[in-house]
Amino acid sequence: MTRQIKLGAFLPGGGQHIAAWRHPDAPADGATNFQFHRRLAETAERGLFDAYFLADNLSVGLGGREGGNAKIAGFEPVTLFAALAPLTTHLGFIATASTTYEEPYTLARKFASLDLLSDGRAGWNVVTSAGDETARNFNRESQPSHAERYQRAHEHVETVKALWDSWEDDAFIRDKTTGRFFDAGRVHDIDHRGKHFSVKGPLNAPRPVQGHPVVVQAGQSEDGRKLAAASAEVIFTAHQSLASAQEFYRDIKARVKRAGRNPEHVLIMPGVAPFVGRTEEEARSKYEELNALIVPEDGVALLNGLTGGTLDLTGYPLDEPLPVSDETEGMKSRQALIRKIADEHGFTIRQLYQWIATARGHYTVVGSAEQVADQLEEWFLSDAADGFNILPPWLPGALDDFVDLVIPILQKRGLFRTAYEGRTLRENLGLPRPANPWTLGRATVQAAE
Amino acid sequence: MTRQIKLGAFLPGGGQHIAAWRHPDAPADGATNFQFHRRLAETAERGLFDAYFLADNLSVGLGGREGGNAKIAGFEPVTLFAALAPLTTHLGFIATASTTYEEPYTLARKFASLDLLSDGRAGWNVVTSAGDETARNFNRESQPSHAERYQRAHEHVETVKALWDSWEDDAFIRDKTTGRFFDAGRVHDIDHRGKHFSVKGPLNAPRPVQGHPVVVQAGQSEDGRKLAAASAEVIFTAHQSLASAQEFYRDIKARVKRAGRNPEHVLIMPGVAPFVGRTEEEARSKYEELNALIVPEDGVALLNGLTGGTLDLTGYPLDEPLPVSDETEGMKSRQALIRKIADEHGFTIRQLYQWIATARGHYTVVGSAEQVADQLEEWFLSDAADGFNILPPWLPGALDDFVDLVIPILQKRGLFRTAYEGRTLRENLGLPRPANPWTLGRATVQAAE
Repeated sequence: MTRQIKLGAFLPGGGQHIAAWRHPDAPADGATNFQFHRRLAETAERGLFDAYFLADNLSVGLGGREGGNAKIAGFEPVTLFAALAPLTTHLGFIATASTTYEEPYTLARKFASLDLLSDGRAGWNVVTSAGDETARNFNRESQPSHAERYQRAHEHVETVKALWDSWEDDAFIRDKTTGRFFDAGRVHDIDHRGKHFSVKGPLNAPRPVQGHPVVVQAGQSEDGRKLAAASAEVIFTAHQSLASAQEFYRDIKARVKRAGRNPEHVLIMPGVAPFVGRTEEEARSKYEELNALIVPEDGVALLNGLTGGTLDLTGYPLDEPLPVSDETEGMKSRQALIRKIADEHGFTIRQLYQWIATARGHYTVVGSAEQVADQLEEWFLSDAADGFNILPPWLPGALDDFVDLVIPILQKRGLFRTAYEGRTLRENLGLPRPANPWTLGRATVQAAE
Repeated sequence: MTRQIKLGAFLPGGGQHIAAWRHPDAPADGATNFQFHRRLAETAERGLFDAYFLADNLSVGLGGREGGNAKIAGFEPVTLFAALAPLTTHLGFIATASTTYEEPYTLARKFASLDLLSDGRAGWNVVTSAGDETARNFNRESQPSHAERYQRAHEHVETVKALWDSWEDDAFIRDKTTGRFFDAGRVHDIDHRGKHFSVKGPLNAPRPVQGHPVVVQAGQSEDGRKLAAASAEVIFTAHQSLASAQEFYRDIKARVKRAGRNPEHVLIMPGVAPFVGRTEEEARSKYEELNALIVPEDGVALLNGLTGGTLDLTGYPLDEPLPVSDETEGMKSRQALIRKIADEHGFTIRQLYQWIATARGHYTVVGSAEQVADQLEEWFLSDAADGFNILPPWLPGALDDFVDLVIPILQKRGLFRTAYEGRTLRENLGLPRPANPWTLGRATVQAAE
């Protein structure tokens, strides 16, 4: 079969753009409105998206205390997706959950449950939950170091996978005549004892329909790339240019190969925030309409928040460039990224927060449906992407535009499906169902005999 | 309004009785079959039950490794209930979650999410998750002591409630014109610092529709009764006789009053496992039919498991009384309870496990619909119960029987509703919506000015 674009839909109910909730066509309460999320899921399924994706924080979040941020309160992703699963039939659900603040047993179980009740449509986006604000909701004064978080993440993911495998696929007999419900020889303790976790198992849930829910990762740091190469099957990533996306794509696929895994089974999906119009002018006016809705204080708070408080732009003139400041070690990465974007585009403070407000570092495309399709096609055909995570800047309009205007063009070009290929998320993504090491071990022994 | 019976439906998909899955009319895979749970929820709602209730373990559970136990693997309750909520309109959902192995922030959030998406139908059954097998899934060799678990439970519940209150009800403004999404003066850090938890807050979810999801408790020990009197709004309990239920009812209502709470706002609901027939004979044959399905090894394993391994009945003749054994301090409570039931009824080992297999210590009623209704009426009218947690021994048949045969009699007698009174679980149970202390504090200040 011809290689086709895979599509995730990144749909926080409050919209992606910081002012999305103020859009005339958006429900102001979208973030906490279940019926609205239901509508979004139905639209994504109508558009044949592979999955609905939700990011997550375990605190009120960046810049969230200033009064204008609609993302400050919402649904826990697995709970929300469980509710949406029976209302849909093919759409996958990729929920974010933390390896730093959740236990492997609890996490393995909730994803196994979601996979079971959705008949194989669950995915886990593995995050380490940065930030001291989050740590303070979980009995700590400050977060564990980046290195420690990633060490723990490696061990966590392996423990969760072992729990998913603790029941073999054919462990359940359910023979009413003999009264044998399961084969005790096909359920296994995992007896994990590591630096961060001790977990005996087995899990009190059957092996997931997909074997494992699809494992997703989004880290861009060296540690993040290592984790992704070791365990991720889908990688969400943020790039502002084709060259940057290509470099990342090459690097990850090479790492995956060195790790002894098949690069075709690790899908790289950059984020794209599309403003789609019937014409380029219409798209541009949509971009400007939304940016005009940003309350300046919220825009500045967003920038301050993104730099982790190491840069305070409060009080500086909005229509002039960023003030010069001494760089210190502690503020390197985030502040440097912000400054780099400002320098590259020659942005004022206002232009910078408008740019950031749309997609927080993801690629923003403003154009006609044909132009947007062209961009996706170019990235897809030039080793920069296996698919895309679409971040509609406001909801539901920007999702509707993408589904109604862009998807048909991609379909016409043979770049996107016209019907779901399979029943599970894994089948639609073209990812193999993982073998169970216990079953595999027995088969090997039998073959040798 | 006349006082009426409240009803919970205790519906593990695999059925309550140890051999329920072997019943000719039960689906053998009910425990892990989502569509079957959906059917059960629809039947419970048709019967106008207040809530669907699910117990929970964080391990494969008592006697679960012997090959015949259908409860060994299933759904995580909140995930399952989230999926059932949009498929129903009035039924409440009371999910069990652990104060020993879950963090307050995570727990508060998932119940707030369930309450939000169900439009106010969530309840939390607070448990401390006894057992070393569970502890070993969460980085421990053995469980914390009973006293420590209950200390932690008190602090946990108070922290969760504070998180639910961290947003005031009117905190969200969502004014598109001004761009003010919320009132920063109406969202609060909780700054909890206790012996077991440090949690800064606020929660990243709005205050639940019900203020707080209904808080449920089931402990019978002294520590359990203290916790229930301090914080529970519904209490599930197990009694084999009217006298025992009356003693418990009196004791709890008195404790609640001493704690400064209104006894009418704490509902006591004993568990009842009904075998209902059109005649008493039919009911009795249903009881015997199900008991004949118990594999003897599973029955003995159940008894061994219930005594925590302090009594091993393996190999003893099934149709003779329990062997005599020395009592030691460590095996006192559970083994003593088992022996007490055997002595009171003059049971053999087989008769004992048959009795226990039905409802594990709950009250088993075998009779015609009129007789079952009579029993419930007697307990309800003689200060033993405000309602009942119905545990149908097998599913779906025993639930159908209760809904089709017993409920109409209770309704005819004016003892049970003929339509839901309200929209939320709290409204149907007749429980008040808790005030928010922050809002209350402001009102008090304003009144004093």
